[in-house]
Amino acid sequence: MATALIILAAGKGTRMKSDLPKVLHPIGGAPMLGHAMRAGQALTPDQTVIVAGHGAEAVAAAARAHDANAQVVLQSEQLGTAHAVAQAAPALAGHDGDAIVLYGDTPFIRPETLRRMLAARQDHDLVVLGFDTADPGRYGRLVMEGERLERIVEFKDATEAERAIGFCNSGVIAARTETLFELIAAVGNDNAAGEYYLTDIVAIARARGLGATAVACEESETLGVNSRAELVQAEALFQDRMRAAMMEGGAILVAPETVHFAHDTQIAPDAQVEQNVVFAPGVTVGARARIRAFSHLEGCEVAAGAVVGPYARLRPGTKLAEDARIGNFVEVKNAVVAAGAKVNHLSYIGDAELGAGSNVGAGTVTCNYDGVSKHRTRIGARVFIGSDTMLVAPVTVGDDAMTASGSVITENVPQGALALGRARQVNKPGLAVKLFEMLKLNKRKRDREAE
Amino acid sequence: MATALIILAAGKGTRMKSDLPKVLHPIGGAPMLGHAMRAGQALTPDQTVIVAGHGAEAVAAAARAHDANAQVVLQSEQLGTAHAVAQAAPALAGHDGDAIVLYGDTPFIRPETLRRMLAARQDHDLVVLGFDTADPGRYGRLVMEGERLERIVEFKDATEAERAIGFCNSGVIAARTETLFELIAAVGNDNAAGEYYLTDIVAIARARGLGATAVACEESETLGVNSRAELVQAEALFQDRMRAAMMEGGAILVAPETVHFAHDTQIAPDAQVEQNVVFAPGVTVGARARIRAFSHLEGCEVAAGAVVGPYARLRPGTKLAEDARIGNFVEVKNAVVAAGAKVNHLSYIGDAELGAGSNVGAGTVTCNYDGVSKHRTRIGARVFIGSDTMLVAPVTVGDDAMTASGSVITENVPQGALALGRARQVNKPGLAVKLFEMLKLNKRKRDREAE
Amino acid sequence: MATALIILAAGKGTRMKSDLPKVLHPIGGAPMLGHAMRAGQALTPDQTVIVAGHGAEAVAAAARAHDANAQVVLQSEQLGTAHAVAQAAPALAGHDGDAIVLYGDTPFIRPETLRRMLAARQDHDLVVLGFDTADPGRYGRLVMEGERLERIVEFKDATEAERAIGFCNSGVIAARTETLFELIAAVGNDNAAGEYYLTDIVAIARARGLGATAVACEESETLGVNSRAELVQAEALFQDRMRAAMMEGGAILVAPETVHFAHDTQIAPDAQVEQNVVFAPGVTVGARARIRAFSHLEGCEVAAGAVVGPYARLRPGTKLAEDARIGNFVEVKNAVVAAGAKVNHLSYIGDAELGAGSNVGAGTVTCNYDGVSKHRTRIGARVFIGSDTMLVAPVTVGDDAMTASGSVITENVPQGALALGRARQVNKPGLAVKLFEMLKLNKRKRDREAE
Repeated sequence: MATALIILAAGKGTRMKSDLPKVLHPIGGAPMLGHAMRAGQALTPDQTVIVAGHGAEAVAAAARAHDANAQVVLQSEQLGTAHAVAQAAPALAGHDGDAIVLYGDTPFIRPETLRRMLAARQDHDLVVLGFDTADPGRYGRLVMEGERLERIVEFKDATEAERAIGFCNSGVIAARTETLFELIAAVGNDNAAGEYYLTDIVAIARARGLGATAVACEESETLGVNSRAELVQAEALFQDRMRAAMMEGGAILVAPETVHFAHDTQIAPDAQVEQNVVFAPGVTVGARARIRAFSHLEGCEVAAGAVVGPYARLRPGTKLAEDARIGNFVEVKNAVVAAGAKVNHLSYIGDAELGAGSNVGAGTVTCNYDGVSKHRTRIGARVFIGSDTMLVAPVTVGDDAMTASGSVITENVPQGALALGRARQVNKPGLAVKLFEMLKLNKRKRDREAE
Repeated sequence: MATALIILAAGKGTRMKSDLPKVLHPIGGAPMLGHAMRAGQALTPDQTVIVAGHGAEAVAAAARAHDANAQVVLQSEQLGTAHAVAQAAPALAGHDGDAIVLYGDTPFIRPETLRRMLAARQDHDLVVLGFDTADPGRYGRLVMEGERLERIVEFKDATEAERAIGFCNSGVIAARTETLFELIAAVGNDNAAGEYYLTDIVAIARARGLGATAVACEESETLGVNSRAELVQAEALFQDRMRAAMMEGGAILVAPETVHFAHDTQIAPDAQVEQNVVFAPGVTVGARARIRAFSHLEGCEVAAGAVVGPYARLRPGTKLAEDARIGNFVEVKNAVVAAGAKVNHLSYIGDAELGAGSNVGAGTVTCNYDGVSKHRTRIGARVFIGSDTMLVAPVTVGDDAMTASGSVITENVPQGALALGRARQVNKPGLAVKLFEMLKLNKRKRDREAE
Repeated sequence: MATALIILAAGKGTRMKSDLPKVLHPIGGAPMLGHAMRAGQALTPDQTVIVAGHGAEAVAAAARAHDANAQVVLQSEQLGTAHAVAQAAPALAGHDGDAIVLYGDTPFIRPETLRRMLAARQDHDLVVLGFDTADPGRYGRLVMEGERLERIVEFKDATEAERAIGFCNSGVIAARTETLFELIAAVGNDNAAGEYYLTDIVAIARARGLGATAVACEESETLGVNSRAELVQAEALFQDRMRAAMMEGGAILVAPETVHFAHDTQIAPDAQVEQNVVFAPGVTVGARARIRAFSHLEGCEVAAGAVVGPYARLRPGTKLAEDARIGNFVEVKNAVVAAGAKVNHLSYIGDAELGAGSNVGAGTVTCNYDGVSKHRTRIGARVFIGSDTMLVAPVTVGDDAMTASGSVITENVPQGALALGRARQVNKPGLAVKLFEMLKLNKRKRDREAE
């Protein structure tokens, strides 16, 4: 049966003290909204409706960046969660299936949890997501009778006995789409805040003879983010989840607590990650690859058996083929490094192609920027680039060619040729000693003058 | 009313197993003594008296480095805390106001706590600082009657009932300066250690009909440091405090537990700090600046909107103007980088000025040292420094000038000029292939000979 | 009296999901087996017998790499721990002394613990190692009568009262060698798994009127590793132990939780290690040396007073003499750096010797690889290597010589000589401005064409 996602993402997030709409604050390099959308997408919904409000344009852009088919509706005034869901009604008119309401600032719900909610929907008209907690505080309590959800009691209205209940309301709700909007239409705002609360649909449903249940998830799944401090906690929780998931998937982490992942990092089994590695978004690492300590990767592919670092920075557009090696103090950007090619030391390789089995010496730079435009460097297979070679792009070095150390290469180098661009060495006997004496003399003179 | 600080800093710190006097061991890059002085300075004291003993000269130098007006008195023999305070009497002769006794090895007292002590002084002759603890161990217990401090009982003298008290003595005391020294003069040394204990003044005060009270602070504020292990714990506590304070102040930290601050780090709101950043002393970061992962900063100013790192090292004397960018594997020392100027890759910029909007290519070095002296490099505005340019200082590059990649610049470059200092490229067809064959042949020969 | 070690190392470690035999998974850079062997070697055994099975060849190689005198015996079929020990019988035929049975996947036993077991052997025929735990779970319980070990009860056979015992069996056992094998010969396999259990020798010994006792160790010493998750926990425990041991030994660690050690790291008292430092195996650091933040060291010696980093990478074969300095973004490999010599910035020094007091400028590279072979660079004392010098090995620079910045040095430089290998600078007035205009014009043209 078809499933529709409704994701509430209209809040301002005043306590975040930021111009950025709350749901766009990042966790693992992706906006929180994206995490919520991804959890929901695991249900392969036929429609995804984002209810935007504060910063609606930015929220809409982020939603569409994540899923081009997402529909964004506007909640101009923030009059409560039921009012927010109601804004999705036109977009879901005639939707024949279930709808599930998620929150853009609750990034940790697991897909399995949502699947369990949908499964429970087979037997119940309404399914609420609850969580057991040792510290229920002021959360609404879920009053159950067996597997039937009797009602949700707000903390302030709860009896002592009800307050002792540790099973609390997460706010996530699933129902048949048609039913959901019928119930929401009946929600009133006769309360202190004058708001329309989604939670009220449970009482309305029960009054109409509909059946409700609650499905339980881990408390951490319902973690919401309302302040910078909570964002930091959420990031830490996300990292712990990723580290565990990576190891579970077969990645070898020597010191997992020192590795930071992005929301979309992919690491193949038996790939190894050393200490203090940062993965920004968009990184894929192949089997048996080795990411050494102090490396920073973003938007790049590292194929099987490749070795990166220590102290390597791979920037967006980098593709390392099998067994390629990028060594210490090397930056690679928008460059393809073919199988077995090596850039081991102190180099900048940007807007470039490096052929199979080629070796780039220390201190090499692809001079890709002329002050106005960027240009490409093409290096063939089995090429030996001598240390401190400047490759002034656009330039091409043919297969099996060689550049002499210290050369500035401004013209193409034919296949098999040796390119030189450097002055011949001259030794001036005794001059170092004299020069030193002179420099010392000058210094003494300056020092005396300064006195 | 005037306030005088007396800071006891005479201890040797035998358990530190170090030649450094105990109070000079650093936390967050500043000697512990400095932390205690800074807490006290929040009271804007009219006099600050440091009681030095072991390593008195070094302690005096550190005290004056922190506060040029600090007075240092010598406690030649360590005969107890009351004896130490007594050494401050001549320096405070005629002081008309309150005195507060702090400890140079207790770096975490909060200014607010000291202010509360002074406020309590309005109603009580003597104010002792206490702390509640779940594990009172062998600390002296504060026996209270309402807000009145009855007496301080040493653990060994305490009854079972008194040992059950969890409110303990920190040793910090405030009193009218005159009263303090009168009471101290009455302290005896009739005890096992033959020492004069400051704590004894409470009993003496009570016997003379004076009123005492105790003010409570958090246990962590009274943390003292007596061993290397405790120093490490104190550093960790300091870092946690700083991380919380930075986030409270609006700095954005992705992984706060991986960032290390110095005692004086200043970060403006909405500045962002990524993973694994070390701030040594003397760093100021402006609003919306971004300090990327694996950066190390010391003694530098980073203006609003500037971007630093990843893998950037800013050393003392570096000033980055607005929107300047220092990229990966770049070291900057004693250099001013003007607005919007960029040094993005693998460069050393030392003893230099870089004009607004200029761009420095990868692998550039300001050759500031000739083996004897250091010299300055001056680069104008809108200059394009080609990759691998050596700027042999002293040297000046005029506005709108350009240097060709791979050039060694030993003479000034006029405004708008292009400076070249490199050989022309020559391609030797087929020579790379021949050279490779020869090298392989030679290797085989050597290998055979080695067998 | 002579002591023999028997270390069981035949297990496959199915749950490790790895081709590597379980005992070869590394902790602190050394195989677990090595840790167990090292603990045992503290008893100066006259014989060490490793019982290998899965991956026996690799296990044997690792055992011999750790201790050339280790004897490796094969357990072809894994029929239980008693069966494994029995394989060591021929190797220990006629051994006159004690034998102690350890486990290759239990790397944390302390030498002191083993010494206490041997001491207890003086008064008891059999000594079992036990540990007290709050969570005994399904471990076998040690039933004691005073200091006498009555019996070991498996969890499944234990009464309620026995299950309440928190003193559990580690499996480590010591006995006179002859006695051990006599008892083992009597062990049967009449149990569910059809295996021969070493533990059974306690009951057999008691039945024969022999005396047994148990010695207690900390629970953490008996930590075994059966999965990748447990390996990560073991690594973390190892690191915590090393950090504590290093500080106990007098090393100064600012943020110990950010430093990662190898099994054999040696740091002298008063050496200082900053944040985020990784020690791979084979590193020795001398007194008062300073290892700065973000450094990575492997297989190297750092003498007293030397300063390394930040961002320095020392690779195998590096030897830094007293007061040498290796600075940021510098890689050193297989090189000897003499007293007081400095390589402060952005350089690669490989297969080289650097004489006392010499100074290497930024961006210097020893071009040690010609595409086929590696060659050495020899630099004398008090040499000044100008920035961006390429030293094309094999090459020698004499004492007191100097190279000009930007030079490619392909021939030896005599003592005291100045070597130059660079083009002379030419300034082309106004050409930078014209070039910029042309580049902009070209870009506009390309952009128009692209539209």
